[in-house]
Amino acid sequence: MPSEFDLIARYFTRAPRTGGPLMLGVGDDCALLVPASGELIAISTDMLVEGWHFFAGADPEALGHKALAVNLSDLAAMGARPLAFTLALALPVADEAWLASFSRGLLALADAHNIELAGGDTTRGPLNLCITVFGSVPAEQALRRDSAQAEDEVWVSGTLGDARLALAAMQQQLTLAPEILDAALKRLHRPEPRVALGLALRGMASAAIDVSDGLLGDLGHILERSGVGAIIDADALPFGSVLSHQSIERRREFALNGGDDYELCFTAPIHQRPAVLAAAQQAGVPVTRIGLLTKEPGLQVTDCNGLALSMRSRSFDHFANS
Amino acid sequence: MPSEFDLIARYFTRAPRTGGPLMLGVGDDCALLVPASGELIAISTDMLVEGWHFFAGADPEALGHKALAVNLSDLAAMGARPLAFTLALALPVADEAWLASFSRGLLALADAHNIELAGGDTTRGPLNLCITVFGSVPAEQALRRDSAQAEDEVWVSGTLGDARLALAAMQQQLTLAPEILDAALKRLHRPEPRVALGLALRGMASAAIDVSDGLLGDLGHILERSGVGAIIDADALPFGSVLSHQSIERRREFALNGGDDYELCFTAPIHQRPAVLAAAQQAGVPVTRIGLLTKEPGLQVTDCNGLALSMRSRSFDHFANS
Repeated sequence: MPSEFDLIARYFTRAPRTGGPLMLGVGDDCALLVPASGELIAISTDMLVEGWHFFAGADPEALGHKALAVNLSDLAAMGARPLAFTLALALPVADEAWLASFSRGLLALADAHNIELAGGDTTRGPLNLCITVFGSVPAEQALRRDSAQAEDEVWVSGTLGDARLALAAMQQQLTLAPEILDAALKRLHRPEPRVALGLALRGMASAAIDVSDGLLGDLGHILERSGVGAIIDADALPFGSVLSHQSIERRREFALNGGDDYELCFTAPIHQRPAVLAAAQQAGVPVTRIGLLTKEPGLQVTDCNGLALSMRSRSFDHFANS
Repeated sequence: MPSEFDLIARYFTRAPRTGGPLMLGVGDDCALLVPASGELIAISTDMLVEGWHFFAGADPEALGHKALAVNLSDLAAMGARPLAFTLALALPVADEAWLASFSRGLLALADAHNIELAGGDTTRGPLNLCITVFGSVPAEQALRRDSAQAEDEVWVSGTLGDARLALAAMQQQLTLAPEILDAALKRLHRPEPRVALGLALRGMASAAIDVSDGLLGDLGHILERSGVGAIIDADALPFGSVLSHQSIERRREFALNGGDDYELCFTAPIHQRPAVLAAAQQAGVPVTRIGLLTKEPGLQVTDCNGLALSMRSRSFDHFANS
């Protein structure tokens, strides 16, 4: 059985890229990150637990991808350029095949975003993945949650609800044709963080958040922190392609409260509309206007005729039923 | 039952200190850290798992202290000034009394080191604590592992072996008088990271590491990365005070291979000896010369007469017996 040090060396040690942001990577007490002159370091951490964030026996390659993707999605929502990340990993057994596959998924996404593994920790324990990511952003261009203004438009990237459909199928709440299920599972297991869009929206969006817990709940954080309200047009929502065979009620519910979409929900002044569309084109990600911010607090959902719908946020809470 | 958001708000949200290193703290997609001009960001992460790093039912206040202390110890070993940290926490149930006590221990140590909680993640799952710390250090003053030179002296701070004695007592390998056990447990549960010493040794020590897995194993990392060997004088070791009733063999074994000491082991050129002693006095931590680095690779332990002892590193490996 290879030792912890062997395992780290084999699957997680790579020399820092010459000219990259790491002066020192894996193998010392600390990694040493070189900040870009005049920029801030954006930091986010996410912990994924077996049986809670993913099912036991989940494909380790997809897990490696997703563990990093959800963190990169937080950088995207701040408009930060990804620099590096740390990985802390608790494993029940040192399963080499699992580690090889996990690191393949993880490092492929890291390479796609030119982001370096700065260090980490491996230990024995119930399967748990904790990634912390570091990005770079000029202070005045950070896409915070607290700077949205009344009358700004509300936008969302890509499409919503497909990941929730996959989850419903996995929980046997519904049955899907095999090709539909495959497409839905891809959205659930292999989210693509909207890093390029976040960068393109710098200095343009007034606020942003990534949609991890469901659009209404996540938008609610922007509203709360910015002290504004919103009216969302349910008929303007960009439903995921695999939702097309579902009822309109289910499409709306999964798009508004599904979660695991890892799209960006952002706000921007009306006069920025052409710039937002150009930024989205540059980033290669469609964006859709779905509503307006209001001075009055609260979050209303209407149909395209302005008639109120009784949709409520069912924001994800890990301890809600405990 | 309070929600996840309520719990985070109650126990872990504090506004960033005015003039501190955080432009933005808990409550957005990312925290925003302001780097010191011209300095690097030192980053380290550690994961603590119940049943592996600590016993089930461990005092949550001590656990809060230790989870941050072991991370600050990594910053100390890099000579970095602590700035901020993130906390990711998996809990089997949202136990408010546990959280109140844990956050008290955690934040008391954070306050003692003037370090800010930048953000985090809470989730349900088997008890698991993952902290990532951020510090600041000028590039040319970082205490790396790879820059020790043959003929440098080897030093260690404080005393060694007490924490290992406590562990032996908890595992019922031996019995201690109550006052001895209390003192030993304090060393195991409430390590004091040598941050002030790490800062004082900047530009003076040629290499450093913190003693978490055992002196010989940890020093071995310096030797390997620096391409040198060492001779350690077992009779020069600063044994912990609670070890005094133990046999010389056990004192040596626990000091050399005990682990959980969270002292600094560092190297420095002979001509720096007075400066090292002055730095230690400034930091309020005793330091002891315990050996010399050699050109020849390998790690030898001798007695004070230079006779070789058969001590070998039993470096900690989480997967060694799996």
